[in-house]
Amino acid sequence: MKADIGVYGLSVMGGNLARNIAGHGFQTAVYTRSAERLRMFSEAYAGKSSNLIPCSDPAKFCKALAVPRKILIMVKAGEAVDTVIGNLLPHLSRGDILIDGGNSLYTDTARRADELENAGIHFVGMGVSGGEEGALNGPSLMPGASPEVWKQIKNILQAISAKAPDGTPCCKPLGSPAAGHFVKMVHNGIEYADMQLISEAWMILKHIPGINDISSVFRKWNSGLLESYLIEITARILEKKDPETGRPLVDLILDKAGQKGTGLWTSFAALELGVPATGITESVFARMLSGLKEQRLRGTEIFRAGELGTLSGITIDDVEKALYASKICAYSQGFNMFSAANEQFEWELDSAEIASLWRGGCIIRAVFLNEIMDSFTQNPKEENLIFQSVFAGKLRDCISSWRNVVCAAVRAGLPIPAFSSLLSYYDSMRTAVLPANLIQAQRDCFGAHTYERIDKPGESFHTDWLD
Amino acid sequence: MKADIGVYGLSVMGGNLARNIAGHGFQTAVYTRSAERLRMFSEAYAGKSSNLIPCSDPAKFCKALAVPRKILIMVKAGEAVDTVIGNLLPHLSRGDILIDGGNSLYTDTARRADELENAGIHFVGMGVSGGEEGALNGPSLMPGASPEVWKQIKNILQAISAKAPDGTPCCKPLGSPAAGHFVKMVHNGIEYADMQLISEAWMILKHIPGINDISSVFRKWNSGLLESYLIEITARILEKKDPETGRPLVDLILDKAGQKGTGLWTSFAALELGVPATGITESVFARMLSGLKEQRLRGTEIFRAGELGTLSGITIDDVEKALYASKICAYSQGFNMFSAANEQFEWELDSAEIASLWRGGCIIRAVFLNEIMDSFTQNPKEENLIFQSVFAGKLRDCISSWRNVVCAAVRAGLPIPAFSSLLSYYDSMRTAVLPANLIQAQRDCFGAHTYERIDKPGESFHTDWLD
Repeated sequence: MKADIGVYGLSVMGGNLARNIAGHGFQTAVYTRSAERLRMFSEAYAGKSSNLIPCSDPAKFCKALAVPRKILIMVKAGEAVDTVIGNLLPHLSRGDILIDGGNSLYTDTARRADELENAGIHFVGMGVSGGEEGALNGPSLMPGASPEVWKQIKNILQAISAKAPDGTPCCKPLGSPAAGHFVKMVHNGIEYADMQLISEAWMILKHIPGINDISSVFRKWNSGLLESYLIEITARILEKKDPETGRPLVDLILDKAGQKGTGLWTSFAALELGVPATGITESVFARMLSGLKEQRLRGTEIFRAGELGTLSGITIDDVEKALYASKICAYSQGFNMFSAANEQFEWELDSAEIASLWRGGCIIRAVFLNEIMDSFTQNPKEENLIFQSVFAGKLRDCISSWRNVVCAAVRAGLPIPAFSSLLSYYDSMRTAVLPANLIQAQRDCFGAHTYERIDKPGESFHTDWLD
Repeated sequence: MKADIGVYGLSVMGGNLARNIAGHGFQTAVYTRSAERLRMFSEAYAGKSSNLIPCSDPAKFCKALAVPRKILIMVKAGEAVDTVIGNLLPHLSRGDILIDGGNSLYTDTARRADELENAGIHFVGMGVSGGEEGALNGPSLMPGASPEVWKQIKNILQAISAKAPDGTPCCKPLGSPAAGHFVKMVHNGIEYADMQLISEAWMILKHIPGINDISSVFRKWNSGLLESYLIEITARILEKKDPETGRPLVDLILDKAGQKGTGLWTSFAALELGVPATGITESVFARMLSGLKEQRLRGTEIFRAGELGTLSGITIDDVEKALYASKICAYSQGFNMFSAANEQFEWELDSAEIASLWRGGCIIRAVFLNEIMDSFTQNPKEENLIFQSVFAGKLRDCISSWRNVVCAAVRAGLPIPAFSSLLSYYDSMRTAVLPANLIQAQRDCFGAHTYERIDKPGESFHTDWLD
């Protein structure tokens, strides 16, 4: 009997996905380049599951698969994906389906799909979120599959994916091969903003006098509007003690945040698509700022003395509201990238469906996504999440606290790049006349770039401003 | 007698540069693709100047030039540059020098320089700033020329360039072909931030009760710390009346700011180089936000009522200080890109030299650049402009006003993306411990990305946070 699917690559993510698939009763061929890793994986798992079929080379691996073959590629994004495709190609037949489950750049996925189309091979770029644990027990899956391809992979993918609280599989087809990786990229960009906002909220809470147990603040928030995986793990992280010193472990961690590129790519794409994703981009830059530890220590010496105020006049409730309002705006920036991508690439990304599939399994899963899903289901044409009436109402409830928190932090000298950038985004989106008319006048003055007049729409004007 | 230099392309910039060169006594061959434009240019200018030599095709143009030929290409950035190079190449000899004076992307320039090196042709990417007027009367020039090439073009370029107040030509060789366009790109990125900051300051001034004549505020600022071309033209712009209505002309301009790409490229490069150029990027996004006029009008309806406070408790002096402090930080972000580029591309960009050549001719020319030049001359190894003692002192003087202005705008609901983002940058650079340790804990929790400990430097740790 031939295998239902193959998994190429047995790193933690690939290995866990293979076990997840086999655990759901699918015959799963597995292969990885390292013979040693293949042997270890086989010893650890294949003995226990008759559904896992280790194969010792790409030819045998492809031969083990039922036709049309379905192969999930789980290797490092970049050149390795092209190498693997090259290794597989001689052993494939027309109609076979390759699924790239790594964090590939969506433009690479578009190129690969085009190249493979000529060989009659279907290519699916698939976002996978949920970390190692999600891969094993149910990730959020974002397959860039056409309806024709979707029919053939739906059973397996929806079986292994996470389920939303209402039972819906967190796995929907996104139409075009590159769309899967695009949606995953934006997911990660939003995740950067979410994490930055939580870290700013934590910093602010630490400066409010009289709060002894910030972990319990997050625990409480996790049963309210902010209920989400990231808030939940933040509560758990903050209560973790270092066994050696008894101090909170987080305080012993070096404050240099790493990044692997998908946040950066989201900012690139936002800039290219003309979407003002300011909160996401500030969060990417904030990680770079965190890396400048030595410069910051010098800056502390040069600037700190006498300049830091104390945080006053705000409550825990204010911080919760500021965080929630900022989060709404950060998500709106992410979702705006889908409409822009639909226009640019002629995709048909559906914001309600995407919110739906992020409700379980992935890092940004949150109760909040139910409301995003519901609002876009009811008003699919609404151009900005912040205008959806449920969120507009919540922003109105939170705005005064949000302003208080930003001012308090500004006065106390606490850096809040995401909180304040998103507040300026919100204020920009409610300002009928921005001072950009002055910018247009300046551009016309020094570069003859011309301008439009509000009383004569559609015409271009030039003025000799310095005569 | 052969011509000293040729100018290929006679758009406004190319035509004015050709006239500038000829006016300095250099025999200047000119060619442009459109016979009509060439005829018009010849009629208008060649009759009056025996130094302008119109040529009717690329072959004759190249034949008219002394060897080694020096050709300034002034065509639209992008494919046109490659086309022009292709047109010229059959008529060139080894050792000839092509200078691209358009706003080319620096990575394109690097590619072209490599390709031309094989043919023995020197390629110089040259930034040109100053608009049409600067091109005619003295632009700031940023040639990406090696010492060997510089020797051959120095006379002409330094003759036609602007001169700083102390008489120094605003034209220095930048070493590598792509470095010229890189420096010009960063110049434009800084220009975006400068313009956005001025527009935010103007918006704030409009909301301070009792100021009748904002133009005169800018005029006064232009004789102080902020003295610069952009402040000067802002004063002039604000006093300009629409002849038809008698209203200030700026108020009749549609508030959608255009952009031609170099600001965007600066943000791309900053993200790629890992430099947190937050103020520049917020300024790029602010132009995109200005373009969302229809959405903003809806936002006004949904959110404006009852939410807008009034601006209180700040003075004109506070706004001047906030603008100046923001400007210091925006420039520091731009200059940080030079150190990062030196490391990444093995260039030797010199911040003092770059500040020097921006002192005249270009859009961001300002008295302020003298101080940047002086401080980097005295402390060339200082890693951040804000740490240079003269600027650190000024930041200390301005910080309290800056915080007041940001808070006042936040309370009044005025969008200030650049003011507030740069303040968070400043505060980040003076914060010894950022909340990025929480981000590292989260990353380790869901993705096993590991972390470093402050008490055990150099080792990687992983914790099972949810056990």
